[in-house]
Amino acid sequence: MGLDDLAAELRRFAADREWERFHTPKNLAISLAVEVGELLEHVQWGTDEEIAELARSPEGKAAMAEERADVCIYLVRLADVLGVDLLAAAWAKVAANAERYPADEVRGSSEKRARPPGGRA
Amino acid sequence: MGLDDLAAELRRFAADREWERFHTPKNLAISLAVEVGELLEHVQWGTDEEIAELARSPEGKAAMAEERADVCIYLVRLADVLGVDLLAAAWAKVAANAERYPADEVRGSSEKRARPPGGRA
Amino acid sequence: MGLDDLAAELRRFAADREWERFHTPKNLAISLAVEVGELLEHVQWGTDEEIAELARSPEGKAAMAEERADVCIYLVRLADVLGVDLLAAAWAKVAANAERYPADEVRGSSEKRARPPGGRA
Amino acid sequence: MGLDDLAAELRRFAADREWERFHTPKNLAISLAVEVGELLEHVQWGTDEEIAELARSPEGKAAMAEERADVCIYLVRLADVLGVDLLAAAWAKVAANAERYPADEVRGSSEKRARPPGGRA
Repeated sequence: MGLDDLAAELRRFAADREWERFHTPKNLAISLAVEVGELLEHVQWGTDEEIAELARSPEGKAAMAEERADVCIYLVRLADVLGVDLLAAAWAKVAANAERYPADEVRGSSEKRARPPGGRA
Repeated sequence: MGLDDLAAELRRFAADREWERFHTPKNLAISLAVEVGELLEHVQWGTDEEIAELARSPEGKAAMAEERADVCIYLVRLADVLGVDLLAAAWAKVAANAERYPADEVRGSSEKRARPPGGRA
Repeated sequence: MGLDDLAAELRRFAADREWERFHTPKNLAISLAVEVGELLEHVQWGTDEEIAELARSPEGKAAMAEERADVCIYLVRLADVLGVDLLAAAWAKVAANAERYPADEVRGSSEKRARPPGGRA
Repeated sequence: MGLDDLAAELRRFAADREWERFHTPKNLAISLAVEVGELLEHVQWGTDEEIAELARSPEGKAAMAEERADVCIYLVRLADVLGVDLLAAAWAKVAANAERYPADEVRGSSEKRARPPGGRA
């Protein structure tokens, strides 16, 4: 089941509980930030090696999966409330990034190092 | 094309540019926070009505779509690097939320108002 | 006791526990984001009126005070680790903002509405 | 000039521009998250060594100082709007942390490693 099914389920979930009025873009964006904050707790103090090890353990994997699920849920709900096709926007951005960062020019390059995938204007 | 295709494309994108070493869980989680910060800029000062209006305009829609695309991209990449099925985790969370917040008990209720979809322990 | 005393106390606190190696700028910045996420939980779903009411109650005030204390602590520690005078930087920014947003030009103005105090380039 | 003077200046700054209505706790908390997101951009991809080097350079120091100034400004303004003494809350938290993490018990200890200064319940 894909993102569209998830969006539809979240729509139904909110409607069943009469929670639509709480799902303003502002509140959903705030919720995204709250969940990302929780996700960051898992990487707050560890070294990259420790985090990688944690991520390999069943408990670590499960804990981080829950946080990412919450981020995913709010992201999909926000996109739906704003009437935007999330996957389409993501693919468009990937295409734009491919143009902005041609592989031949940026391969391992340090000047562009600060501008991987997401990039910035 | 679904999330799996996007994850594969992001994997290829990073490999082509030899950027995998930057994609530690820590850096990707930080990137998520950076992008959510940019998304929050759109809702920082406006009232809910103003934001809804902005969201209906073509420019507002496009601007917010780009930010959400960036959040989506980092979320998918992080899940992939950690070897977790993002959609599966999201669906599991939705099921858990449905149990934690039975529609009959929480419909429009103010006590549970503070705990919509994402909820908290 | 001012910010400088707090910075010195946090320095001592970390040294006593041999925690300095965890206090890299990266980890402290992540910690700031974690605490801001917790702070945002208090304003996640409420209307402005409800939040104002919560802020007036002793419990609400205490809860929000703790979150803000955590943000303050990490901010002061980060500034100290980076060797920057936080208050001096804040005053410099206030002066710059006063020039960027002359009171006569922006009073209640809607075009500038999106750019209060912090502003953006 | 201390935090109280800064709070008073920010109060005046907002009043002069008739911007008080934008300074709801919700909007100020969002603004904090926006600024922390900008601060995180400086540590997003670099290694701890690279970031330390950046922090030693005049330009790096200046750039990061501006972000931290913005975080400081919104934090002080939020505390003021909520009628809370920020420094007093910070000192109270430091005292609580000293009790929760007695130096003798946590010195360099890995079990407590995940709970430096800010800690969590």
